[in-house]
Amino acid sequence: MAQTISLKTECGSASDESALAKAVAGVIAAGRAAAFRHWVPATSGNFSVRIDADTIAITRSGVDKGNLQLADILIQPLAVPLLPGSSAEAELHTALYRQRPDLGAIFHVHSPAATVLSRLAAPEGRLLLTGWELQKALSGVRTHEAIVEIPVFANDQDISALSGRVDARLAEPGGDAIVAPGYLLAGHGLYAWGATEAEAARHLEALETLFEFELSYRRFTP
Amino acid sequence: MAQTISLKTECGSASDESALAKAVAGVIAAGRAAAFRHWVPATSGNFSVRIDADTIAITRSGVDKGNLQLADILIQPLAVPLLPGSSAEAELHTALYRQRPDLGAIFHVHSPAATVLSRLAAPEGRLLLTGWELQKALSGVRTHEAIVEIPVFANDQDISALSGRVDARLAEPGGDAIVAPGYLLAGHGLYAWGATEAEAARHLEALETLFEFELSYRRFTP
Amino acid sequence: MAQTISLKTECGSASDESALAKAVAGVIAAGRAAAFRHWVPATSGNFSVRIDADTIAITRSGVDKGNLQLADILIQPLAVPLLPGSSAEAELHTALYRQRPDLGAIFHVHSPAATVLSRLAAPEGRLLLTGWELQKALSGVRTHEAIVEIPVFANDQDISALSGRVDARLAEPGGDAIVAPGYLLAGHGLYAWGATEAEAARHLEALETLFEFELSYRRFTP
Amino acid sequence: MAQTISLKTECGSASDESALAKAVAGVIAAGRAAAFRHWVPATSGNFSVRIDADTIAITRSGVDKGNLQLADILIQPLAVPLLPGSSAEAELHTALYRQRPDLGAIFHVHSPAATVLSRLAAPEGRLLLTGWELQKALSGVRTHEAIVEIPVFANDQDISALSGRVDARLAEPGGDAIVAPGYLLAGHGLYAWGATEAEAARHLEALETLFEFELSYRRFTP
Repeated sequence: MAQTISLKTECGSASDESALAKAVAGVIAAGRAAAFRHWVPATSGNFSVRIDADTIAITRSGVDKGNLQLADILIQPLAVPLLPGSSAEAELHTALYRQRPDLGAIFHVHSPAATVLSRLAAPEGRLLLTGWELQKALSGVRTHEAIVEIPVFANDQDISALSGRVDARLAEPGGDAIVAPGYLLAGHGLYAWGATEAEAARHLEALETLFEFELSYRRFTP
Repeated sequence: MAQTISLKTECGSASDESALAKAVAGVIAAGRAAAFRHWVPATSGNFSVRIDADTIAITRSGVDKGNLQLADILIQPLAVPLLPGSSAEAELHTALYRQRPDLGAIFHVHSPAATVLSRLAAPEGRLLLTGWELQKALSGVRTHEAIVEIPVFANDQDISALSGRVDARLAEPGGDAIVAPGYLLAGHGLYAWGATEAEAARHLEALETLFEFELSYRRFTP
Repeated sequence: MAQTISLKTECGSASDESALAKAVAGVIAAGRAAAFRHWVPATSGNFSVRIDADTIAITRSGVDKGNLQLADILIQPLAVPLLPGSSAEAELHTALYRQRPDLGAIFHVHSPAATVLSRLAAPEGRLLLTGWELQKALSGVRTHEAIVEIPVFANDQDISALSGRVDARLAEPGGDAIVAPGYLLAGHGLYAWGATEAEAARHLEALETLFEFELSYRRFTP
Repeated sequence: MAQTISLKTECGSASDESALAKAVAGVIAAGRAAAFRHWVPATSGNFSVRIDADTIAITRSGVDKGNLQLADILIQPLAVPLLPGSSAEAELHTALYRQRPDLGAIFHVHSPAATVLSRLAAPEGRLLLTGWELQKALSGVRTHEAIVEIPVFANDQDISALSGRVDARLAEPGGDAIVAPGYLLAGHGLYAWGATEAEAARHLEALETLFEFELSYRRFTP
């Protein structure tokens, strides 16, 4: 039971208990909000919140994200292999937390506009958005005239290989576009993050809504 | 009143009362969840859960699936003709339970993406899906690269004839595709099942969501 | 205040109080259900239930259908002019109740699929549906192979003239098609009815859902 | 803290406390209703209600409109510069209240149909609607045959310049069309208003629903 959440954490002194409890509560709230929107159908999706520099709270594999219990959440140190019960995709979370110490939360969903648009944009390896005021809900975007780039990766069941490609791509400079706080896996869904749970939730909602706008708009534009 | 649910079951010693009560609760929960999604409009749809090898709990004909009462559920032995008050389509349930002892629950809905796509796919007699990560929510599917086949049958008011065609088709080998835990009736809706109520519910949500993705994707692809 | 509902009804001995209370409760429930689906936006729509051969309960003009109060409901005798506070469209209700003694409830909504499809079908003066199992939720329809005809009328601010055209059309024989328990006003919305409140609600949900199916299907068929 | 709401208002004797409390409650209710419809994603949108001739209550920048607290609402005198914590777009509210003493409430949302249609209509600088009964929910529109004009402005991060263009345009005579109680910012969203909070809410719902109808209808018409 060491990997399940308990108020008697075994993660060491670096994580105080209130940070752990706050992170677990953040995971539960994010899962419930996404389930309410039908963005995590059929136990899909996963959600993590950083506890401290070395540890995250993350959903276990195969659980209903709309009704998360304490036992559905793992306390995963970033420096060790994935704990038993982990989703294979947890590696996408841990690798990104290691690369980006500024990230406080990562949320992954199978929302409909993201999933469909990810496939349409897959051949180009990226999706470019511009002209939407809502872009400004993304950290670092100041105007609707900015070009926002969302990287799109081919889906892969080899998560280590995929994680390597994601990390390499996210380390590249963005060029003229502003790189969004999230990426798409083709035919799979959206990863979005933020410095805090609130920012990750805002980025998630902003991106899925922008994708809805874009999909609807494309039905009328050649 | 013998065919209505009662805690003093008349189904014989093979069904203990807790299995019966659990099955009835499963039917009620499945109906409510489907109604919440508007997948059983106008009293359509039907839901069954296996009690034991010989008996199922199944919704009566013409009742509101979002507010099922005990009297709306029949305890149907698999070896006898349909009880008074049954839906004609109950035969599709009983025949499938007899053929597939591994099935624990069968849910039928008139969800929009399933209903529309069933008509579009009817001429080919099957719908093929590939490239969606969510496919992996279907039992036996391990990769988005798998081809998932959903059989599509012409609708028929002669349920016995239809049931025979369904049973014959589901007994066929799947070929290169993985046959989904469900099928479509053209212009009618979706049947989905699982070993347990939870698995049937997961399959139902996964299939309808995959159909939504597919319908939306097809609007942009020739 | 004579026209507002009160448990001390002034409608005379023909309406007993329990019939009146039941009708008022039916109007309130129907309004709430439609508002929950966003089918009566911006105080649109109206709902009536028959109290007895000579009297109906009907929503007052311009009220929020999702939160109906007793004062929002008029007790309208069928033999007298519309009471103060009536919607102009109340005449479509009273005329139909007079023509059809079998009708127990009439519900009118501005639901999206009905409203859009009504305009697309307006040039032909009718909408024909076939091939949907859900058609069977309409009273008198026994098979998905039936052709269901929904009359479509040009919208008109002269409700008396419109009511006359509706009554004349509904008195015509249906030909090969089965005439639905409802009609469309082009660019306006749907009227649906039934012998009871439950049947009217079932017809309303069945028709709007059929229209959703049909609209989605037409996007893929020439 | 002078700019945050308090029952001990510092706005002077012109605003009595019950008018202030009513306006604040109106802002909170409008935000919650819009959030429920997903019209204010990712903390977008803003809502104001007039307290008296000289003062409004308006949402602070960057707050969740679905869960507004007293501290999220500013009491903004119309004659002074925007208070600290204001959204830049608050100027669109204050300028319009100064120009139109008859306005009691202004609501701004990023609803999907408005946002997408605003971009499609941007080249013409206006959107014309006709043929919808629901148009009559807009103040001053008496028939579905009326042509309703919704001005469409290019989006601009220079809110003062944008506000000037809006005020100039809204002061123009409407010509043959009836000018709607609202306007669109291209790729941004909808502003709608009314003499009271209830009227502004009705106009907002009517306009977004009309835009949904129009978008759906345009998919089938060349």
